[in-house]
Amino acid sequence: MSAWVLPDHIADVLPSEARHIEELRRGLLDTARSYGYELVMPPLLEHLESLLTGTGEALDLQTFKLVDQLSGRSLGLRADTTQQVARIDAHLLNRRGITRLCYCGPVLHTRPDRPRATREPLQFGAEIYGHAGLEADLESLLLALACLRSAQVENVSVDMADVRVVRSLLAGVVLEAPVLHAVHAALASKDASELARLTREFPAASRDGLMALLQLYGDASVLDEAGKALAGVPGVAEVLAHLKWLAARLEGVNVTFDLADLRGYGYYSGTRFAMYVPGASDALVRGGRYDEVGAVFGRNRPAAGFSLDIKQLVSVVPTRALKAAIRAPWGDAQDVGAAIAALRQQGETVVCVLPGHESEVDEFHCDRELVQVAGQWVVQAISGN
Amino acid sequence: MSAWVLPDHIADVLPSEARHIEELRRGLLDTARSYGYELVMPPLLEHLESLLTGTGEALDLQTFKLVDQLSGRSLGLRADTTQQVARIDAHLLNRRGITRLCYCGPVLHTRPDRPRATREPLQFGAEIYGHAGLEADLESLLLALACLRSAQVENVSVDMADVRVVRSLLAGVVLEAPVLHAVHAALASKDASELARLTREFPAASRDGLMALLQLYGDASVLDEAGKALAGVPGVAEVLAHLKWLAARLEGVNVTFDLADLRGYGYYSGTRFAMYVPGASDALVRGGRYDEVGAVFGRNRPAAGFSLDIKQLVSVVPTRALKAAIRAPWGDAQDVGAAIAALRQQGETVVCVLPGHESEVDEFHCDRELVQVAGQWVVQAISGN
Repeated sequence: MSAWVLPDHIADVLPSEARHIEELRRGLLDTARSYGYELVMPPLLEHLESLLTGTGEALDLQTFKLVDQLSGRSLGLRADTTQQVARIDAHLLNRRGITRLCYCGPVLHTRPDRPRATREPLQFGAEIYGHAGLEADLESLLLALACLRSAQVENVSVDMADVRVVRSLLAGVVLEAPVLHAVHAALASKDASELARLTREFPAASRDGLMALLQLYGDASVLDEAGKALAGVPGVAEVLAHLKWLAARLEGVNVTFDLADLRGYGYYSGTRFAMYVPGASDALVRGGRYDEVGAVFGRNRPAAGFSLDIKQLVSVVPTRALKAAIRAPWGDAQDVGAAIAALRQQGETVVCVLPGHESEVDEFHCDRELVQVAGQWVVQAISGN
Repeated sequence: MSAWVLPDHIADVLPSEARHIEELRRGLLDTARSYGYELVMPPLLEHLESLLTGTGEALDLQTFKLVDQLSGRSLGLRADTTQQVARIDAHLLNRRGITRLCYCGPVLHTRPDRPRATREPLQFGAEIYGHAGLEADLESLLLALACLRSAQVENVSVDMADVRVVRSLLAGVVLEAPVLHAVHAALASKDASELARLTREFPAASRDGLMALLQLYGDASVLDEAGKALAGVPGVAEVLAHLKWLAARLEGVNVTFDLADLRGYGYYSGTRFAMYVPGASDALVRGGRYDEVGAVFGRNRPAAGFSLDIKQLVSVVPTRALKAAIRAPWGDAQDVGAAIAALRQQGETVVCVLPGHESEVDEFHCDRELVQVAGQWVVQAISGN
């Protein structure tokens, strides 16, 4: 095999896309900062138990494992950043009040999430700790929408769910883990016959409620239907009221609900949301509430947030033209050096043509050149451009 | 062990430093772009033979290894980015003329480079392919200096070397690899008695030349001394002339030479440089010429470039104050939302005080607040601030 072949689902990002990703990255971080979210940079490598305790099997399977030569202990390459940020909130910052944090960096997956997904997403996310009220859920939703606006994403639709609906329906039902997984899978794939088979011996209220969930997706009318279908289930009325309150505050987007949706990592504890755009095969953004995620670090703080993959984002937003550059001659004289430095200081890209390369076509699109006219260096349009 | 304990030489970057690193990162990338260097993003994971072929033992030992579940093949986590960028130049871009590329991302090391070094440097670098002449070496040097200026690093000194001096002295001497390593180590530590022992049976010209190298470090007068001491060694006069030519074109920095210096990765093939500042225990920047690095990918192009670790850089530059923020009340009314959105659009950080958290001290320094005066939302200085 040739040395230049990359592993499957691993790719280089080449100049035009890399520039766009860098611009999106800056826009996302600046948007989060404008909401008061402080940047943190957790490491790529951690002890396995820090990365994986309490986060569920899906994340475990996605995590590359290594042995630390310095300690002999098992390390993991992060497959997700939320657990790390919870650790920083719980242990390092240790604040009593609200903490808002954001991050941006690569994560690695042993297997691709989806058929054409990369195994090295560039994950951006923002999290708010310390507030149990719905205002934190709302702030997460609004910040996620502002982030997509900063990336010039249009026609966003928000799909809302809440893990407590299924949990309430299963409360008191004693289940082995494989059966629970099978129930979740049947709900996710809306497989009525499988779900009927699995729940055959469940209490009638649980069984009927779970079967009803398969139809409870769509626009806001779903919440009213759910109110009737799940009327007797403790806690569900409050969850539905929360979803209604949040949805009423989202302007300019199409909001849908799917009360059977449990996709994504296992750490969610309440309201969840996913954001979609036409043309993307999977959700662009996933977020919600995960109040228990810091427990392993000794501080069970309320938490809500979201994350997205900038490599996925860049594939659904319109490409932007790179700013054109200026060609300049290579020269040893001080005055040409000063002219070039001044242009660069103004934010221009100035490409020096090294001796012997005068006839090459530059890969940066140069629409102007630096030429000497009457002893002065001036920028002129390149003729024929 | 507690779940929040990180592996040795691995650390979180907390908000004030993370913000500074992000600013440095943008400054470095913008500086490279202003010189016409295009951004690329090679992956963290590659097949081992792509990362390590021809790069020497030091990089091999520094590289974490994994097994790819999809293919069963051995993967490496990059410990350096230069080899990857050479692969991109050689295979993906495949241009005939000059290609200028830059990159910025984490690399991982199995062991720390220095006693207090991180095992997860944030490597930034820039490389120029396709020009064998000294102008490319000079552009690398000047761009590296411009990058340090963009980071507000002062009192930079540049130490120059050239691997061809030692290679010329060893030309024709048949050596086992361990002896060659020992000779390099003795040169690096300027250990005269060890070097004398190792070279006892070398041809006189080689032995005397190598022993002379131990004294050949210091200011520009070193080049004249070397010209005399190594007068008969083929190729050395040209190397010394190159160093002189380059040094004469570096303004505003202190230039020194160390003709015995061979530190860093094994892929250098010509002129090398290291940049130091007072207060840093190791070089901030290392760079030079590595014409052979793309050979494994089938294209042996001339190449020169440099890299630095932004986590090391941030520790030697003055900290910058974070821009102060504006506190705003949480409110459902549309007019306060519009006022907040407008401020954020102007680049301000606006922190909403969620209900019940009014008396908390915000971690973002808020020097102003959004208040309602006569029905209008206005920004006022916070009294007692």
